[in-house]
Amino acid sequence: MENRSLVTIAEHSKEKILYLLEMAKQFENNPNRKILDGKVVATLFFEPSTRTRLSFETAVNRLGGRVIGFSDASTTSSSKGETLKDTIMMVSNYADLIIMRHHLEGAARYASEVAPIPIINAGDGANQHPSQTMLDLYSIQKTQGTLENLNIFLVGDLKYGRTVHSLLMAMRHFNPTFHFIAPDELKMPEEYKIYCNENNIKYVEHTDFTEDIIADADILYMTRVQRERFTDLMEYERVKNVYILRNKMLEKTRPNLRILHPLPRVNEIAYDVDDNEKAYYFQQARNGLFARQAIICDVLGITLDDIKE
Amino acid sequence: MENRSLVTIAEHSKEKILYLLEMAKQFENNPNRKILDGKVVATLFFEPSTRTRLSFETAVNRLGGRVIGFSDASTTSSSKGETLKDTIMMVSNYADLIIMRHHLEGAARYASEVAPIPIINAGDGANQHPSQTMLDLYSIQKTQGTLENLNIFLVGDLKYGRTVHSLLMAMRHFNPTFHFIAPDELKMPEEYKIYCNENNIKYVEHTDFTEDIIADADILYMTRVQRERFTDLMEYERVKNVYILRNKMLEKTRPNLRILHPLPRVNEIAYDVDDNEKAYYFQQARNGLFARQAIICDVLGITLDDIKE
Amino acid sequence: MENRSLVTIAEHSKEKILYLLEMAKQFENNPNRKILDGKVVATLFFEPSTRTRLSFETAVNRLGGRVIGFSDASTTSSSKGETLKDTIMMVSNYADLIIMRHHLEGAARYASEVAPIPIINAGDGANQHPSQTMLDLYSIQKTQGTLENLNIFLVGDLKYGRTVHSLLMAMRHFNPTFHFIAPDELKMPEEYKIYCNENNIKYVEHTDFTEDIIADADILYMTRVQRERFTDLMEYERVKNVYILRNKMLEKTRPNLRILHPLPRVNEIAYDVDDNEKAYYFQQARNGLFARQAIICDVLGITLDDIKE
Repeated sequence: MENRSLVTIAEHSKEKILYLLEMAKQFENNPNRKILDGKVVATLFFEPSTRTRLSFETAVNRLGGRVIGFSDASTTSSSKGETLKDTIMMVSNYADLIIMRHHLEGAARYASEVAPIPIINAGDGANQHPSQTMLDLYSIQKTQGTLENLNIFLVGDLKYGRTVHSLLMAMRHFNPTFHFIAPDELKMPEEYKIYCNENNIKYVEHTDFTEDIIADADILYMTRVQRERFTDLMEYERVKNVYILRNKMLEKTRPNLRILHPLPRVNEIAYDVDDNEKAYYFQQARNGLFARQAIICDVLGITLDDIKE
Repeated sequence: MENRSLVTIAEHSKEKILYLLEMAKQFENNPNRKILDGKVVATLFFEPSTRTRLSFETAVNRLGGRVIGFSDASTTSSSKGETLKDTIMMVSNYADLIIMRHHLEGAARYASEVAPIPIINAGDGANQHPSQTMLDLYSIQKTQGTLENLNIFLVGDLKYGRTVHSLLMAMRHFNPTFHFIAPDELKMPEEYKIYCNENNIKYVEHTDFTEDIIADADILYMTRVQRERFTDLMEYERVKNVYILRNKMLEKTRPNLRILHPLPRVNEIAYDVDDNEKAYYFQQARNGLFARQAIICDVLGITLDDIKE
Repeated sequence: MENRSLVTIAEHSKEKILYLLEMAKQFENNPNRKILDGKVVATLFFEPSTRTRLSFETAVNRLGGRVIGFSDASTTSSSKGETLKDTIMMVSNYADLIIMRHHLEGAARYASEVAPIPIINAGDGANQHPSQTMLDLYSIQKTQGTLENLNIFLVGDLKYGRTVHSLLMAMRHFNPTFHFIAPDELKMPEEYKIYCNENNIKYVEHTDFTEDIIADADILYMTRVQRERFTDLMEYERVKNVYILRNKMLEKTRPNLRILHPLPRVNEIAYDVDDNEKAYYFQQARNGLFARQAIICDVLGITLDDIKE
């Protein structure tokens, strides 16, 4: 049988992405279904991530499945020296699907190669986080009515930001124009600029973050400058306050502009933005529920036809 | 829509309290119902409390709902600097109800003001713990046949004891006589004595804890002298052994006397009391299941009529 | 009512063991049933054990029951000084069954004496772990077609290894021949050799672990040399690499030989053994699901007749 694991969104064709978004739309119409009745899903969070875990666990529970797992590896057999392979083999005996987060890049790929059941990558180090990308795409499509020909501004930590890298790659199918707004220390890495060139993705780089620069944005994708990425905390303190979106910066922006953020935020979006109708980050998080229900069903072999009501 | 959150029992009228107690009684008759089928309840314990969490989670599970959440905030986004508002907004996307415990007073109130879904306060610092009060009231009503005109003795830590303060306020509707038995260091605070005076609640203060003093008690409410409340551990060591209830102290007490304790106890009730038929603290804990089922249903808009069989 | 707790497999007769194995077989045919609908099972892991916990929780979920509990006692009331009795009494108010793991020997026995609901011992210190023994027996019976007259080789840490002690006692009904293979520091304790003599169990002791010695084994039961058992870490480092099973050692073994291991392993089975058809440890872990479903049903009074389809 085909292993239907989802390790990276880069493996998905344009058609597959649009298909999953259509599935997510069905789940937004009705997220409560009994389609996973009798299924056990393991959420293995070797690295904690409450938001992602709760979103996936809600997705499973609303579909009638049951959840087992752990939210922190410190008390697991891994700490007794067990290999990832053995842990995955063990859990494969119990569950029908493993959703895993790991601090090591490549962990999800490896797990998908040894496991007899599907794996969903819920984040592997700085590498991939495909369900986040699916909910970003769903949020863009829903708010803009299309994924095609959009001006997408990525702001903040473009060097370590896993979500912006994945979004960039997934958007290659849809003729976007990207604007990269970041301080020098956190610039978009060369490899992704090469990727853009190879895939005919237009991009412009900025180091300023001003009202004028974002005037023609359709999507403003803000990211958190994560303390844990810095070895020099002085540098972090200097940088973290530079790229802050404030409500008055939004006055001249397009009416269709929507502001996204993978959350959690620290201070990169001022609280006065929350009441602006262009703020969309909390609804975006809600879309994660539907996008994840679509992903879960897909890796388990449940089709759009199965869920249409 | 009206926000039906439960932040403090002080907001409830006498009628509302009696209504919830009647609901709890229905659940004691049958705690297993499918009335929350399709609902997801988030238990967010920013501060650990196994007892309260397990009681709430049992309540949800026996009603057919599903539980997501965390039992300890140390691995959540809060530790990455996320605000309470953002955490609550995020979880509101997934769950139909949030049950939260937090170390800060006022946290539940604040959450109820920002959340689009109901909040149940499962304890906010030294402030409120309304579901504990409801199970205390249910236990008193069940064992005494009434809530009216009772002699209620509160023993131990009356200064920091959240449960005794809430019980005192909730009893204002029922013409109680309170006896406050505490060492000087842990006396009932002035503000609550003023509250008693303003609400025509009779009270007597004692510093001794003897057989004679408790002779006419209907309810003896013991509390734990919590080490974590003391800055001076020497003081704690001196005080903790003073207010211990022993079985021989119960000989001359009323037949209808019942001993309550919010649990966990350390040593303030000697183990030889456990087999005395006046000991009621374990059954009291069991009543928490029914009281919490009533509270959960009420905040979700499920009425007594909906659950009557 | 009879307390149906499972504290140790030593209490079970031959007939009871064979009955539970027959039940497990029924669950292997179909592990997904609604037989625990409306039941709440508490998994109280005072000591972490992810594998055992996930196995039990899967067993409950696939039978339609609901799970509450904790995976680590560090944030529970135990850390506030609550006694085990009080914790057990509290949880008994909520759950229909307690599955508990504790670092203290005798904890499960004590819990079964105070609790009004059944207890399943999921490991108490170095003492007992009966569900592990049931899955070992199930794995032996399934792979050998019988439990009678087998050559069983126990390898590694026979001094502290709880699983080998329990297996040895459970096999007394089935006329086994045991081979104990261990370094001097980790030899089978005298008390178990006396037990063998008293129960007419044949055994041979070895300090070498070679191809020749295991030539007539039906079951090779490998165990982990656990670092946490050693006070002298130098001694651990010396011993841990001595008893390693490698694929080339299996060439002259019997065709029916199967290799068991309670898992997690560290390095006592080389990875090249995993693809050998005699490796059975991952399937063994899977059998844990069915064995535990049988145990759970049995302590709850559900019979083989109830589950036969």
